[in-house]
Amino acid sequence: MTLPHTVAEALAPLLGDRLHTAQAVRDHHASTATYIASQSPDLVAYPKSTDEVSQILKICHAHDFPVIAFGAGSSLEGQINAPNGGISLDMSEMAEVLEVCDEDLLVVVQPGITRKRLNEELRATGLTFPIDPGADASIGGMASTRASGTNAVRYGTMADNILSMECVLADGEIIRTGTRAKKSSAGYDLTHLMIGAEGTLGIITELTLKLRGIPDKVIGGMAQFDTIEDACNAVILAIQCGLDVARIELLDAGQIAACNDYSKLDLKVCPTLFFEFSGHEAGTDEMNEMFREIATDCGATEYKYAQNADERNVLWTARHNAYWAALAQHPGKKGLSTDACVPISRLADCIEASNNDLIESGLAGTILGHVGDGNFHVILCFDPENADDVEKVEGYLGRMSMRAIEMGGTCTGEHGIGQGKQKYLRQEVGGAVDVMKAVKIALDPKNILNPGKIFPVGNT
Amino acid sequence: MTLPHTVAEALAPLLGDRLHTAQAVRDHHASTATYIASQSPDLVAYPKSTDEVSQILKICHAHDFPVIAFGAGSSLEGQINAPNGGISLDMSEMAEVLEVCDEDLLVVVQPGITRKRLNEELRATGLTFPIDPGADASIGGMASTRASGTNAVRYGTMADNILSMECVLADGEIIRTGTRAKKSSAGYDLTHLMIGAEGTLGIITELTLKLRGIPDKVIGGMAQFDTIEDACNAVILAIQCGLDVARIELLDAGQIAACNDYSKLDLKVCPTLFFEFSGHEAGTDEMNEMFREIATDCGATEYKYAQNADERNVLWTARHNAYWAALAQHPGKKGLSTDACVPISRLADCIEASNNDLIESGLAGTILGHVGDGNFHVILCFDPENADDVEKVEGYLGRMSMRAIEMGGTCTGEHGIGQGKQKYLRQEVGGAVDVMKAVKIALDPKNILNPGKIFPVGNT
Repeated sequence: MTLPHTVAEALAPLLGDRLHTAQAVRDHHASTATYIASQSPDLVAYPKSTDEVSQILKICHAHDFPVIAFGAGSSLEGQINAPNGGISLDMSEMAEVLEVCDEDLLVVVQPGITRKRLNEELRATGLTFPIDPGADASIGGMASTRASGTNAVRYGTMADNILSMECVLADGEIIRTGTRAKKSSAGYDLTHLMIGAEGTLGIITELTLKLRGIPDKVIGGMAQFDTIEDACNAVILAIQCGLDVARIELLDAGQIAACNDYSKLDLKVCPTLFFEFSGHEAGTDEMNEMFREIATDCGATEYKYAQNADERNVLWTARHNAYWAALAQHPGKKGLSTDACVPISRLADCIEASNNDLIESGLAGTILGHVGDGNFHVILCFDPENADDVEKVEGYLGRMSMRAIEMGGTCTGEHGIGQGKQKYLRQEVGGAVDVMKAVKIALDPKNILNPGKIFPVGNT
Repeated sequence: MTLPHTVAEALAPLLGDRLHTAQAVRDHHASTATYIASQSPDLVAYPKSTDEVSQILKICHAHDFPVIAFGAGSSLEGQINAPNGGISLDMSEMAEVLEVCDEDLLVVVQPGITRKRLNEELRATGLTFPIDPGADASIGGMASTRASGTNAVRYGTMADNILSMECVLADGEIIRTGTRAKKSSAGYDLTHLMIGAEGTLGIITELTLKLRGIPDKVIGGMAQFDTIEDACNAVILAIQCGLDVARIELLDAGQIAACNDYSKLDLKVCPTLFFEFSGHEAGTDEMNEMFREIATDCGATEYKYAQNADERNVLWTARHNAYWAALAQHPGKKGLSTDACVPISRLADCIEASNNDLIESGLAGTILGHVGDGNFHVILCFDPENADDVEKVEGYLGRMSMRAIEMGGTCTGEHGIGQGKQKYLRQEVGGAVDVMKAVKIALDPKNILNPGKIFPVGNT
């Protein structure tokens, strides 16, 4: 690995004042959203085009210099850290909508655009990009972590909503992973290989995304239950009955209390499902009525819904602010959102065990999640300066990951492996890790692309 | 590469009378469903377990001996041919349903089970595996070619309906590509890497598939149009309006005439859409009414539908027999079904150009397809012994592939590359072919897994 100032000299003619070495800029580009210690890059660049990314990669490749893509910095497992140093490629100057093709329900974007900005730009078309991980993440970052969120139960994850990508490989070569066809059997599925690779196989420079029509009708509401098990059973039954729910989120009693305080609501403090149905007129009403029956059969003590957007938004805004609401209950503490995903039949068990574990370990936390997918989060509130707190948190994260794996699930449904979950990857996938490493070595033999992510530093 | 009889000797203690060397058995395991010449394997084995597949692979790996997985033999691009010789692994003795988990809407199967048999075994559960490529293909083969078919517009392709697979790698190692969780961000997406790899990266020995509930209500019917363009426009509009069509198939006038003869129907001979809506009571009716309006606006001259299963099945049986119907119009000739997939906005153009090309080249053929996905087939009827016919067919296939690629689509939406479409792969994906090859070399450095498929023989 060449010294940073030598690489900076080589890059300067290309990037001019879009190459930064100031400590403040470098620190801004290291992980801060987690308890994982920040590891700043040596350099930060703001490329403006695919061609520039390619040239940067060629220079870095020649110098064995690490390259870390940076979107909005909202990843949760240390994905943007630079444990080996290197250059952070901040994609915020590659954030354009390049083309909207409404006939084909697709949009071509640069990776730096955030999901909210994309949907603002789409507003006039009647189309929307539905993947919503909560944070206003960049589309490139969402692709790289295989993000999903509240809408995934209906529309799938990033893996289901990208038709094709342009990527720059470790040596600067530019490839396109697919076409605009809705399906293809032409060779290996490089699109899915790059999605979720956390920038370790290539730098995404363009994405062709599927869009959806904004539905004619939306009904949103909430159902409240005495126990988490009852709430989970209602979700299981809805999925089994083929109800095409648009969103279905569980918030535990603690989270409801936090939301009441933070979002000025007056909900009964008990396990609650926030749900949404959308589509055409009659079908949406029908699904809502079917779910009302299911929820009632499962012991719902309250079932409320509204078609009015303002009323619906009260709930969804509270849901989106859940992390901040949980944190506000514990002034002075920091929050950490972790995730796991299990087969839906094990969801009630897994959440109950995770809740008991919270109580037993004496940690402050709430549980909520995208339960239609079997995916849930625990928001832990703790003091990262307190060694005892950190030890408890690490113990909890380990038990939660292993519990999900033992139940036939995964240690991460949507946040990724990054640095935080490397120790559980082999527990989950066994020898398949070696296949992943073989692919990594084949595509990036010098290990310059986001080293130390998914696999330990120096261990590809 | 060791001589076949040496490998046979090494395998005999393991396989006993499940190892075959008879010419008739070998020939049965080479491609016959296309005009591509058959290339028989040297040996045929019928493994009974994953462990046996692993042991076979270890022995073949030690002897540099090619291994070709064989499902039902219904692939269309020469996928089961043995251009370098080797052993065909016939998976028909690994064809069990291992577990149905109705709570999680999933089933675990061995690769040799065919889709019809799977759905028969599921009958009592009220669940179904909806992917239907027409032929009664094996599930392992369907995974390997990334198959889809009439239901893909609603339920996606094999790529969207496999949660996880167990695969045996080139050196005999057994891996599992995923978990039972509905979504995951844990490392590289090996499941999608193996789907569509045509047996060149690993031998699939077990699959965990997503199931769907059998819908409460199904409405099926047909709409007839004066022109293919009108029919395509109706499809485009339906997709854009977010109509969740279960199936929507286009048959051109020639295909309708052939179906009338073959399936004893009396349909007006003109471009026709066969469609199906399914779901809950009110939503299904609503979609049917919306589509009636759309079709009428697009100039439909006839719109008929039925809820009754027998009436619906008349149409779908005719659709499934379309290949044989087309062939029956040309006694003594052989049929070839090719496929391409384009963005739906280009579908009418692409089909019209493909039809004009048929007329200009003097070939007998019909056009039909899964138009909701932009995917269509041309069934060519010709004499494979007639050099002039074969030259015309090859010219047509090349123009059809390049036309789809130039329109932003793919040379194959669901049949795969195999041997038949290798020459178009680089045209379509450019330098990405080299990434595919790098992955192939990383996972199968001796090139023993289905050599000569996707990439030319000896050219990985």
